[in-house]
Amino acid sequence: MTAPPHEAHPARPGRALPDTQQGMRRRNLARVMHTVSAEGPLSRAAVASRIGLTRAAVSTLVDELVRSGLLEELGPERPGRVGRPGSALAVSAQGPAGIGAEIGVDHLAVCAVDLRGRVRARAVRYGSNRGRSPEPVLAQLTGLVRQVVSEAEAEGLWPAGIAVAVPGLVARDGRTVVRAPNLDWHDADLGALLPADLPPTVDNEANFGALAELWLGDGTPRDFLHVSAEIGIGAAVVFDGRLLRGTRGFAGELGHVPVHPDGPDCACGGRGCLEQYAGEKAVLRAAGVEPGEDRVGLLAGRAAQGDEDVRRALREAGTALGIALTGAVNLLDPEGVVLGGALAGLAPWLLPSLREELARRTAGPACPVAVSELGPQGPLLGAAHSVVRAVLDDPGALARQV
Amino acid sequence: MTAPPHEAHPARPGRALPDTQQGMRRRNLARVMHTVSAEGPLSRAAVASRIGLTRAAVSTLVDELVRSGLLEELGPERPGRVGRPGSALAVSAQGPAGIGAEIGVDHLAVCAVDLRGRVRARAVRYGSNRGRSPEPVLAQLTGLVRQVVSEAEAEGLWPAGIAVAVPGLVARDGRTVVRAPNLDWHDADLGALLPADLPPTVDNEANFGALAELWLGDGTPRDFLHVSAEIGIGAAVVFDGRLLRGTRGFAGELGHVPVHPDGPDCACGGRGCLEQYAGEKAVLRAAGVEPGEDRVGLLAGRAAQGDEDVRRALREAGTALGIALTGAVNLLDPEGVVLGGALAGLAPWLLPSLREELARRTAGPACPVAVSELGPQGPLLGAAHSVVRAVLDDPGALARQV
Repeated sequence: MTAPPHEAHPARPGRALPDTQQGMRRRNLARVMHTVSAEGPLSRAAVASRIGLTRAAVSTLVDELVRSGLLEELGPERPGRVGRPGSALAVSAQGPAGIGAEIGVDHLAVCAVDLRGRVRARAVRYGSNRGRSPEPVLAQLTGLVRQVVSEAEAEGLWPAGIAVAVPGLVARDGRTVVRAPNLDWHDADLGALLPADLPPTVDNEANFGALAELWLGDGTPRDFLHVSAEIGIGAAVVFDGRLLRGTRGFAGELGHVPVHPDGPDCACGGRGCLEQYAGEKAVLRAAGVEPGEDRVGLLAGRAAQGDEDVRRALREAGTALGIALTGAVNLLDPEGVVLGGALAGLAPWLLPSLREELARRTAGPACPVAVSELGPQGPLLGAAHSVVRAVLDDPGALARQV
Repeated sequence: MTAPPHEAHPARPGRALPDTQQGMRRRNLARVMHTVSAEGPLSRAAVASRIGLTRAAVSTLVDELVRSGLLEELGPERPGRVGRPGSALAVSAQGPAGIGAEIGVDHLAVCAVDLRGRVRARAVRYGSNRGRSPEPVLAQLTGLVRQVVSEAEAEGLWPAGIAVAVPGLVARDGRTVVRAPNLDWHDADLGALLPADLPPTVDNEANFGALAELWLGDGTPRDFLHVSAEIGIGAAVVFDGRLLRGTRGFAGELGHVPVHPDGPDCACGGRGCLEQYAGEKAVLRAAGVEPGEDRVGLLAGRAAQGDEDVRRALREAGTALGIALTGAVNLLDPEGVVLGGALAGLAPWLLPSLREELARRTAGPACPVAVSELGPQGPLLGAAHSVVRAVLDDPGALARQV
């Protein structure tokens, strides 16, 4: 297979395909890909019976996907690996890869995930990005992307697209960071600062974290609220397996839900917002801990050692989270709440008071609160997998270009 | 046209059609219906050009819809009414009708709406339903339904389905009222109490009010939060033109969002919920007004006369609504908020403090708040139109049965 040029990036997720013969063919290509991805290796006959098309129709679709390098036949070339030789199909381990990138306040990270969902290359650079302007940060990120892409290419993969997670509000154009207070970025067009041969999709880290939870989490419901934190507190609302983005793309600002409406002023213009009680700065202050590197690790360490000031600060943050989540749960009636990002690491000390608050404010059974197993890895994995999902959701878009 | 039996009720709204030739045909029938409904009268050629199918394909679809009584030809039979004779199609004014019903705390109402969206028959019965058991209330409602159906039939319409709005939480089965505190109903299966020949869809009145706003409101955005009140305060979240129902069907409980978390106990199990500040009972108490008939009219009348106690009570309710809505807006980033139901009638005295609170808690431009023009009619109209929309969304389901 020849690697296509980097311009070949897939459709944005969720794009509706037109209701024509051509659209139907592309939807059927997607059904084949998803079926093999979820249940493979499978024979053509098994795929046909699962999606309710004829064996002949499926063979035509499969041929196209094999030709484009999206599916591979585990056939006579690899005897003994599965059932009867030549009969089984699998998602390709050497086709397109999703490149995920994360701009954190204290680090940059990039990874490549293949169509089977495995991380095949990864690069991280630690160091504060707070107050740096976007240009040098993006230049550094581009270096990491080049490094990861080159490692992936050495394994026979090629980049199908890149998605970038940022700790801030992103416009619905999927490239402009409107506001990232902890980086001090405003109206930064990241699309213009990343390599032109690999146009990125930029999104909020809480959104990518929630999508990672939806796609990779064990038993994650399809209707849930994902609460995460890096420095600020963000949330993402997933309903019926879809991310609710909001009109401007700003949905999920749980950090600015009023908890005590007459409480301290907040930079958002409000008063007594959740971030004034459960944001990193507020917790560090309440715990009497000096801000430094790896603040979450520091808080977790002290709490584990029994530091009563830290434990009290986290308990109170949990109570404030419980009040804000009571409102969110009443409004949205999700199947569950998942704590991700930095909150996952602090869950042992946040959860008891959070759950207590939710329970005492609810007449019936309280909404279940779980802790993400992906934790801080969520946003990076979610970004990479969003590219992979876009390929699975519309393989025809790539197949035509190959 | 022969009226089909009452069992012929359409698909529930939002049901996805399968991705087959048959499904594609039904989606195309829906596109023809929606196009003629939105832009008719239209010629077959005009429909074809608008939906991008050939004239021949459209003619086949149109013939089926005319045969089923869903479209009518404004042809030679009605010369002079539109353009060239025989050329124009319109949605039928004598085909199926949507029956909407509303169970209010103080009234029952039923109406019939034709496919053109016009109310063709209506019946109302005033009198408190508080504390009455579901059986006699539903028997009375059934009487009103029979009366409205018979009036509609006299005009050549036939009922395509019935939808019932209730002031309470409805399970996702669309027939069981889980909890309607102001009626004192719990786990009441209304489906079993309505005529078997016309199986109903039951939903919360705030949901139907929001749908009415979406479908009938002038310039209503596709992403909005609809806040309404009868006795309690409800809300409905509409995103991308879809109602967000929640896992159990309980989404939109804005009335139980904590406003002052240490405030008075609430029947929901919480403390300081919005309903403790802006619910009808709380406002009447704060205003020093005795509960009686037409409480909204009473409050509005006194406020208009300059009663300072009533005005202060409504101002404070507006502030509480503003705090709760700040949280909701931060979480959902809607394009706007619409005040409906009883709140619409009190808007002149609620809105200033509500808007001020939202604005002072928001750094950028505050989310716009509009007042519904449908007001208390919203839920009943939303119910009837939900049946009409189901016919427009899947006319093939009815066409097959006719």
